[in-house]
Amino acid sequence: MSKAEKPLILVCNDDGIFSPGIKALAEVADEFGNVEIVAPDRQQSAVGHAITVSTPLRSRSFMIDNRFSGQAVSGTPADSVKLAHNQLLNRKPDLVVSGINHGSNAGINILYSGTVSAATEGTILGYPSIAFSCTNFSEDADLSGCQDAARKVIGYVLNHGLPRGVTLNLNAPSGPLKGIRWARQANSRYVEEFEGRIDPHNRSYYWLTGKFQLLDQEEDNDITVLEQGYAALTPIQYDLTSYPLLRELENIQL
Amino acid sequence: MSKAEKPLILVCNDDGIFSPGIKALAEVADEFGNVEIVAPDRQQSAVGHAITVSTPLRSRSFMIDNRFSGQAVSGTPADSVKLAHNQLLNRKPDLVVSGINHGSNAGINILYSGTVSAATEGTILGYPSIAFSCTNFSEDADLSGCQDAARKVIGYVLNHGLPRGVTLNLNAPSGPLKGIRWARQANSRYVEEFEGRIDPHNRSYYWLTGKFQLLDQEEDNDITVLEQGYAALTPIQYDLTSYPLLRELENIQL
Repeated sequence: MSKAEKPLILVCNDDGIFSPGIKALAEVADEFGNVEIVAPDRQQSAVGHAITVSTPLRSRSFMIDNRFSGQAVSGTPADSVKLAHNQLLNRKPDLVVSGINHGSNAGINILYSGTVSAATEGTILGYPSIAFSCTNFSEDADLSGCQDAARKVIGYVLNHGLPRGVTLNLNAPSGPLKGIRWARQANSRYVEEFEGRIDPHNRSYYWLTGKFQLLDQEEDNDITVLEQGYAALTPIQYDLTSYPLLRELENIQL
Repeated sequence: MSKAEKPLILVCNDDGIFSPGIKALAEVADEFGNVEIVAPDRQQSAVGHAITVSTPLRSRSFMIDNRFSGQAVSGTPADSVKLAHNQLLNRKPDLVVSGINHGSNAGINILYSGTVSAATEGTILGYPSIAFSCTNFSEDADLSGCQDAARKVIGYVLNHGLPRGVTLNLNAPSGPLKGIRWARQANSRYVEEFEGRIDPHNRSYYWLTGKFQLLDQEEDNDITVLEQGYAALTPIQYDLTSYPLLRELENIQL
């Protein structure tokens, strides 16, 4: 098979182009096809599905380890995927992968996650897309298990595709892979979310902190699957309509 | 009924505290209870569900028209609602409303919307929450129809509540209200999204532009309802799990 015939895999993240996680994911993607990295030029955690509308974007080329070529974008993860799709890639990607994020994107974290939003943007643009995160925040975390999970999921998606409108979200513990389990987004939230302080000029300010709280009793949620030592794989959609409630309410005249 | 017994309504937005839209929404909310405005101190459009984790937040008090008291927050819409809930309000709100946004948050715009994310954050924190947007981007747009719709929806929700986990998202055309219709989030996207330019130093940069594209054939989607002149009301959820695909995939071993 010639180089040109290999699948093109776009790799993005939200920790920025210099994170160990994006390199770990690019290494796995490289086993399946040609890798192009297009990612934010700096840390963009918790930006959610933000896009940049009031300033222009710039990109510059770079190499990782003299091995992977890429473009660093002065915007968000979703910006990076949009710009790659529209301007930066020579041909359309066969797959969009995002991560490996340093930190969990399970439960309510899915909403705040730039890693997931990059993959969701890939889905909106019509590409099969997968987000990968490791629950360990450390930059030195052992990502080998998450890489093994990525190998299985990327192989599956390249062979079978994904239905339109659906993104896969994988979270894995650090260390060796015990296995992958399908899971729901856990019902969860953060509590006690700010720490108030007084600055040297006697003005108050607040740091976002917060304790994660699992509200879910069923075992098939992503947080519980992770606590049991498995990687959790969740199909997510960007149609946010609550169809059960819509059917319940649609006869009410307002 | 004493002042203290009236419902407390938290008003947020993403256009910032100085937008006409937040004042228009506060006026309607004031008919139902005590209003507290906590909103970003500047324009925050298209920030999605971003939260601020790497810098602290500040807030300062202000008055709109010597009438509504509020706090301007140096963060995103979701930050503002979190900070209001956790630090800034004397008691828990009975309702969270966000808007009136200057510009549509229907179809795929729901994902990028700071207005919607403020309301979603209210839902996550356990409050009945509603987002309001007018399809007209102009700061001079006639918001009276959107205000009439807000009056009906706020009245309904204060009387009947909302199921946990569900947010209402209302979009209205400018001008008089023709009526409110329940609707789904339209299947839609943006195409041709960047305009490349060369700066005076001969370096390229890109402006996000994009044409909105409706991919939806059914009439019950929010964009089509708006095109027919009605306000569109959509129940949305923050559990992003694709349950149909989960049921289809969960027997596949990876």
